[in-house]
Amino acid sequence: MKESDLLAWLYKSASKSAVVPLPIGDDMAGILLPQKGTRNGLTLLKIDQCLDRVHFDLRRHTPEQIGRKAVNRCLSDCAAMAALPVAVLISVALPKAASLPWAKRLFRGCRTAAQKGSCSIVGGDTAVWDQRLAITVAAVGMPAKYAVLRSGAQPGDVLCVSGRLGGSILGRHLSFSPRIVLARRLTEICRVHAMMDISDGLAIDLPRLLSMSGVGAKVVARRIPIHPDAHRLSRHDGQRALYHALCDGEDYELLFTLSRRDAAKLGTARLPVSIIGEITGNINEIILLHDEDKQPWPVGGWNHGG
Amino acid sequence: MKESDLLAWLYKSASKSAVVPLPIGDDMAGILLPQKGTRNGLTLLKIDQCLDRVHFDLRRHTPEQIGRKAVNRCLSDCAAMAALPVAVLISVALPKAASLPWAKRLFRGCRTAAQKGSCSIVGGDTAVWDQRLAITVAAVGMPAKYAVLRSGAQPGDVLCVSGRLGGSILGRHLSFSPRIVLARRLTEICRVHAMMDISDGLAIDLPRLLSMSGVGAKVVARRIPIHPDAHRLSRHDGQRALYHALCDGEDYELLFTLSRRDAAKLGTARLPVSIIGEITGNINEIILLHDEDKQPWPVGGWNHGG
Repeated sequence: MKESDLLAWLYKSASKSAVVPLPIGDDMAGILLPQKGTRNGLTLLKIDQCLDRVHFDLRRHTPEQIGRKAVNRCLSDCAAMAALPVAVLISVALPKAASLPWAKRLFRGCRTAAQKGSCSIVGGDTAVWDQRLAITVAAVGMPAKYAVLRSGAQPGDVLCVSGRLGGSILGRHLSFSPRIVLARRLTEICRVHAMMDISDGLAIDLPRLLSMSGVGAKVVARRIPIHPDAHRLSRHDGQRALYHALCDGEDYELLFTLSRRDAAKLGTARLPVSIIGEITGNINEIILLHDEDKQPWPVGGWNHGG
Repeated sequence: MKESDLLAWLYKSASKSAVVPLPIGDDMAGILLPQKGTRNGLTLLKIDQCLDRVHFDLRRHTPEQIGRKAVNRCLSDCAAMAALPVAVLISVALPKAASLPWAKRLFRGCRTAAQKGSCSIVGGDTAVWDQRLAITVAAVGMPAKYAVLRSGAQPGDVLCVSGRLGGSILGRHLSFSPRIVLARRLTEICRVHAMMDISDGLAIDLPRLLSMSGVGAKVVARRIPIHPDAHRLSRHDGQRALYHALCDGEDYELLFTLSRRDAAKLGTARLPVSIIGEITGNINEIILLHDEDKQPWPVGGWNHGG
């Protein structure tokens, strides 16, 4: 495959818009950031890579699936900040065996995800090498209403997750939809104190949020929403479904905290959100409540309760 | 090497500033774009990758050299648009053999380049895999005075290059400094009509600029500034030094056009710039003037003069 053929195809598929007056084709792309966000607000930036045999497997996954996942991982970070994605840039290191039609399918997967996320692909870089496929995506976003950091959780907050957790390896790690609309809705009806997306699993990601906020948490095990995929995996490997929900990762669901008063609004708004516990003042301490028992949090390195 | 150790080091070295109120550490980084640029102007974006054995060679180059080159390639695109870099994001796929100290040296190389370019590293992603090193850099820039595109060249313009060309393989492809300050200065004293950076060599890049502008050019061979490295290479391989200046690539110098009247200001300002020819109305036609002879442009695919 000639890189110039792929570039020519990319240029052709790039189109000008009010937000992207200068699309792919020059030394840099030019975007006009929405006035609202640019006045007093932050411009949010992220870079994330997706590697063959690390984040996907070229032998088993289609190029459309891979492209979609690469972009959606980055857009999930936009959701985590309650940001609206504006533009993404995509860099691809293609293995020598990749054909032009295959590379186009990869970019179509990227484009599908970008379109669903209402953002434009404004930059692309491609190279061919004798190594495995690597895709890197950078995203530019604007706060939908206000940016939500990991560091804002307060003692007394309720702790929530969206959707259901665990077993994403059965397919959802490729097909998930970033929670952009949900995150925006949350910031419209509540004051979200802290938020992140669950990429490495609740067991690893919750301690990160607590650490950034300087707080602890009590989590009620039976309130953790377990995905049917976690139950399916459990029947195969004998691990408890709860373990999968806590430890599997790649859920790309939202983990967030808000006041008890705001939490009451969640039910009324019929949002796909579960309250799984509360924030405490005991820095980095996580207590997992199992009926009446206190159990250790399933990952080491923290001051476990109980 | 544990990725978490490298991330912890990266987080620690990230610092808040007026431009970067939200550095590395959350799901996205947050920057405040300068008011001037955000009001009516473009936010400029670029992504670019640097791959082992394609853009550098891990067996021969130091991690500092590699990190510096990866960032500087992206900053050279900022120069090409007459933009000031604001922020860069860096994604690194590390080979398994890389140690933590080695990875830190790589990032120090990146940081040196970012600091010289007066911009902040605001995002980082690292992963380890059993393949070769890949570094991807995304840059966010603002027009210094106005953004200069490739498409603005006009018949009658003079054609200019900065610095001297050829033989960069002898070392300059690693150690070059992006022409950010020069590009800014040019837009302050002139109206630059079209500009790009020379990454693939004048022979390939000039046709790109002409094509985007819908014009042609006459180039005077003896006016092309030849770097001493091109002469050194020439003595080794018997190729003419001019050939190296035209075809070697990785010069990262500026190629630009402006009116004859503005060109007069270049000498007065004592800028390191050479006038090498002029823009004509003959679309995509390049005439290379060699004393009295017209010679074909050294790359096919175009309507050569002569």
